[in-house]
Amino acid sequence: MRVITTISELKEAIQAEKSQQNTIGFVPTMGYLHEGHRALLKKARQENQIVVLSIFVNPLQFGPNEDLETYPRDFEQDQKVAGEEGVDIIFYPSVTEMYPNELSVTMTVNKRTDVLCGESRPGHFDGVVAVVTKLFHLVQPDKAYFGKKDAQQLAIIDGLVNDYNFPLQIVPVDTVREHDGLAKSSRNVYLTEKERAEAPALYSSLLMAVDLIKAGEDNPESIVNAITDRIKTETSGEIDYISILTYPGLENMEIIKGRYIIALAVKFTKARLIDNVILVEE
Amino acid sequence: MRVITTISELKEAIQAEKSQQNTIGFVPTMGYLHEGHRALLKKARQENQIVVLSIFVNPLQFGPNEDLETYPRDFEQDQKVAGEEGVDIIFYPSVTEMYPNELSVTMTVNKRTDVLCGESRPGHFDGVVAVVTKLFHLVQPDKAYFGKKDAQQLAIIDGLVNDYNFPLQIVPVDTVREHDGLAKSSRNVYLTEKERAEAPALYSSLLMAVDLIKAGEDNPESIVNAITDRIKTETSGEIDYISILTYPGLENMEIIKGRYIIALAVKFTKARLIDNVILVEE
Repeated sequence: MRVITTISELKEAIQAEKSQQNTIGFVPTMGYLHEGHRALLKKARQENQIVVLSIFVNPLQFGPNEDLETYPRDFEQDQKVAGEEGVDIIFYPSVTEMYPNELSVTMTVNKRTDVLCGESRPGHFDGVVAVVTKLFHLVQPDKAYFGKKDAQQLAIIDGLVNDYNFPLQIVPVDTVREHDGLAKSSRNVYLTEKERAEAPALYSSLLMAVDLIKAGEDNPESIVNAITDRIKTETSGEIDYISILTYPGLENMEIIKGRYIIALAVKFTKARLIDNVILVEE
Repeated sequence: MRVITTISELKEAIQAEKSQQNTIGFVPTMGYLHEGHRALLKKARQENQIVVLSIFVNPLQFGPNEDLETYPRDFEQDQKVAGEEGVDIIFYPSVTEMYPNELSVTMTVNKRTDVLCGESRPGHFDGVVAVVTKLFHLVQPDKAYFGKKDAQQLAIIDGLVNDYNFPLQIVPVDTVREHDGLAKSSRNVYLTEKERAEAPALYSSLLMAVDLIKAGEDNPESIVNAITDRIKTETSGEIDYISILTYPGLENMEIIKGRYIIALAVKFTKARLIDNVILVEE
């Protein structure tokens, strides 16, 4: 496994793989790797000859009042995980390496941003598409892997790739869950013991919603109300949002039909948890 | 020579060339090919195994009051030129093929736009970088060729490629000139006989300016005044702008030093002509 910190060295390494016609699978991350990242790396390992992992805490996607400085970092542990998952190249650039100058051209996400987590993070996804564009050009992957847990990010990157005809395939990877259904997250450790016991209600309320829809309920508001009731009854968390939207368009729907997402965010004392399910209703 | 109109067919063709490790030279145009385009195609032909020419009148780069509808088109003649210059693939897509949906992510050029031709064409370069990004992803060239005559476009695309690490090289190609120095342009035919006789003064005034700078004049304002006098004396045209800027930054300079551009635009009765020289002053 090679750790590469400069763009020039990465270009050489990628060129060498390309000239040998090796397929490249790419997993872009901000590091502090957990089970969810491992699932992405495992899938990339299965499907490609070369696996590239990038670790870069991208300042452009943090708002002025967000946690850029305190975002957790542990490169030594990340290297261990990458080694275990069979990564070939870790790209680990500095901020100066990625952004030597102010960008002369900026990107703006105009769709899918005023819902879900985007509503409270203006400009966040603009920073995401900028860094993803740079990384796609640097790594030139055949396939890039993104988790369904960040469904909004996945949909927006899907839009980016379609709009601009990036020559690669986006591979969505299922959310990894604990045995009781709770979506894995670095933030789960911040839950109190009581909250940890309550938290599986997030996913079970989503499954309940799916059952209601399968049983014939097609009104988004009724479903949202049912999820709200359940989370209020079963947890001490504060609901941030519960939304049913078209997927990947992320638009409101009058009646549940076609491909859709049910997504929610719930704040506990020291952790805000998100979860979602993406389904098709004929 | 193959004419390809769909993205799916183009992808297959490019994939086939890539799998044979063929190098690709790319010349993006809006068609109605003239000598300037031929110079780009010749250089691409010399330097690559495969030459791809795109012909696409990009609606995104036209303002609401600009000449999108009446922009000259002659695909039959363009095919003839392409054949003569040894083009391998002409990519000639429809507007619907390039923009099936409204873009979910847009691009904004924030630097180098409020000078030269950009000043009077708000949004023009945003449309240019969007279509160039799409075309670069579709064609995946090793080298892309742009004329120095559109120096602002060249500088902005250079900024785009550097900002986002596109895996390709931008090759600037010298302006092609008539025997009397007038820069070749499709618009030259719109000059009256008298105007055509006057028009070489644009380039000769630029050369005069260079002589003055080489002789020690380092004040941009003095140089602009000298060019202005000469054009007013020798032509009946109306000066749109005469500017001396850093290159490729396109910023104003107090003293002429380093890499710089002298650029001008002059309006005649039915044609607005542009020209420039790019130089380095130690």
